Amino acid sequence: MQRLTTPILMVGSTDETPEIRYLTGFQAGDAVLLLKRRQTMWLVVRELEYGRAKLSISSGINLLTPNMLGVPRAKWGDTGALAVKLVQKWAGKRVVVDSRFPHSIARRLKRSGVGVSVARQELCPERKEKTPFEIKCIRQCQEAAVKSFRSVQDLLARSRIKANGELIFRRSLVTSELLRQHIATVLLKENCFCRDVIASSGRQTAEPHEKGHGLVLAGEPVILDIFPQHLETGYWGDFTRTVVRGRAPAELKKMYRAVKASQAAALAKIRPGVKCRTVHEAAARELEERGFETRLDGDMRVGFIHGTGHGVGLEIHEGPRLGFSEERLRKNQVVTVEPGLYYPHIGGVRIEDTVVVTARGYRYLAPCERRLEV
Amino acid sequence: MQRLTTPILMVGSTDETPEIRYLTGFQAGDAVLLLKRRQTMWLVVRELEYGRAKLSISSGINLLTPNMLGVPRAKWGDTGALAVKLVQKWAGKRVVVDSRFPHSIARRLKRSGVGVSVARQELCPERKEKTPFEIKCIRQCQEAAVKSFRSVQDLLARSRIKANGELIFRRSLVTSELLRQHIATVLLKENCFCRDVIASSGRQTAEPHEKGHGLVLAGEPVILDIFPQHLETGYWGDFTRTVVRGRAPAELKKMYRAVKASQAAALAKIRPGVKCRTVHEAAARELEERGFETRLDGDMRVGFIHGTGHGVGLEIHEGPRLGFSEERLRKNQVVTVEPGLYYPHIGGVRIEDTVVVTARGYRYLAPCERRLEV
Repeated sequence: MQRLTTPILMVGSTDETPEIRYLTGFQAGDAVLLLKRRQTMWLVVRELEYGRAKLSISSGINLLTPNMLGVPRAKWGDTGALAVKLVQKWAGKRVVVDSRFPHSIARRLKRSGVGVSVARQELCPERKEKTPFEIKCIRQCQEAAVKSFRSVQDLLARSRIKANGELIFRRSLVTSELLRQHIATVLLKENCFCRDVIASSGRQTAEPHEKGHGLVLAGEPVILDIFPQHLETGYWGDFTRTVVRGRAPAELKKMYRAVKASQAAALAKIRPGVKCRTVHEAAARELEERGFETRLDGDMRVGFIHGTGHGVGLEIHEGPRLGFSEERLRKNQVVTVEPGLYYPHIGGVRIEDTVVVTARGYRYLAPCERRLEV
Repeated sequence: MQRLTTPILMVGSTDETPEIRYLTGFQAGDAVLLLKRRQTMWLVVRELEYGRAKLSISSGINLLTPNMLGVPRAKWGDTGALAVKLVQKWAGKRVVVDSRFPHSIARRLKRSGVGVSVARQELCPERKEKTPFEIKCIRQCQEAAVKSFRSVQDLLARSRIKANGELIFRRSLVTSELLRQHIATVLLKENCFCRDVIASSGRQTAEPHEKGHGLVLAGEPVILDIFPQHLETGYWGDFTRTVVRGRAPAELKKMYRAVKASQAAALAKIRPGVKCRTVHEAAARELEERGFETRLDGDMRVGFIHGTGHGVGLEIHEGPRLGFSEERLRKNQVVTVEPGLYYPHIGGVRIEDTVVVTARGYRYLAPCERRLEV
């Protein structure tokens, strides 16, 4: 294993490089550098972060500033110069980096005589298997997501349907914007936030990542995709339900039943040792068998146009990916299971839960009923 | 100018690579690719983003999916494979990338016979000079920040001071957490959010990036650093005030007057053609002349330990940087001016406004009074 012997170098904010937060406990909006040589770590932070870092990093990590590395004042902002000094001093002739490592810095290192190789696997594969503390953190977010969904479900159920299909809640027209505000307000009370929450409706739901804009009408699909990050811990949750206020059209009901069955088929496969592709194929097969094709429609693909799920942790999308990969699931991994169907002339349906892989199967982090009509 | 003739390649989410959002109008949480050859652009998005991208991108941009690029299904998630196909088809033998471009993809391109050079300057230098629309977007955020600050100021002013210095507002003890929730709630109503809002107090304020935890006490400094991003436009604002509930200690008052004077000195220098370092040096000199040293205190630097400001736009920290740079300010640039002083035994003071450079000087995006005691 390359990474056990060759020192690892990481660079970036802890949003860009969550491995740094994972390994050190430090959160930084600006670029920091982490060098890991077997079990020894060196973290370089800017001078103005030094005091904060000293208090928050895990014990045993060597904390450095540009000044302590002997980098002249004029170069403190130059991450490349810091990387060269750090590596020359503590790593030697060779480092391993991940696929996101900046080319400009790799080039600087090479010019200084340091070999840079890109790791063939993740630099922290252990990050995929969550500790009890991490599972608790993700569950907090997942529970906040479910809570905010239930609150919107309740809002929709209590909204009055006008003759033209518009919805009225507390004298306001119900819009995607209103639902997003509502979700954000509930999440905030749980110390969570979801910047790009999806509350799309009608034909917009045929676009999986459309946030939604404008009126929400009775009888049309509403996709609520809520993926909150906890403001203190930095962990995420991920949860989606599709609902209709009032009566759903027959075709949409059929889609909903298919997606629900597809999710159940995928979940039924989840247990340690199962290949990711087995889970994805189970989800896809269920949809096909119910007559829902995935195909090209002009420029666009329609049907089941994304993977079945992904890992969740300090990143909203992380490994393992439940697509066509041969990777095998392991105990304590946390993954979403979120099949969907998307047809421009009808709209979309997606149902998503986040589960933890257990010794014999899986466990919901925050269970929630699935019901199309509210 | 390298960038006018050689095609430019960018890769990443639009948070990682805001240039892509700037040039195309498209916002994406997952990696997309943009190739720009003179005025022609090609944007590659995943299949599930195609419909949404088609509706939201600026006219004249060529929209592509992995399928349209002829990349086999199994490699759709492989950004390196997409980059190679895109460049071979539309760019030819050479591309320019920015300093954040991933090394793993640069290496793939080189192996396919494509030369990759890192730009010596920004790939979109025009992004620093804001259009009237952009200034409006930043002003919205800045006004939201000021509004949320005033609301916290009011909360503190109305809080009751207990004999032990604790503050009570509506039967709750005032804490950093309470203030952050309060700020977030006000921002949300303005369709803005600031994930890492700072509401630190007491000695914590000596750490510029400490978010703050625990009780806020009378007579101690409170730093409120509010940098909201607009949830729709993606632009940011940046605003800081330091306040004290009740009477401020004499030393803190002196620091506050110095920082206020330092900000005024820096602002007085702002106009087109002035070097960034001139602004920073004016801020630093004012603090020194008032007896506030910047020096090493054990491991830590104390005093004025950061730059005077930075550009604000689709990134919270972008160019120009008001540090020791020789770069000259230009009309319509938007910059923060935020000197501060930090001493562990007293705490910190920072005052920050965001201004636009005008033909003869500067204009506040959202003016707000400076008053230490509330």
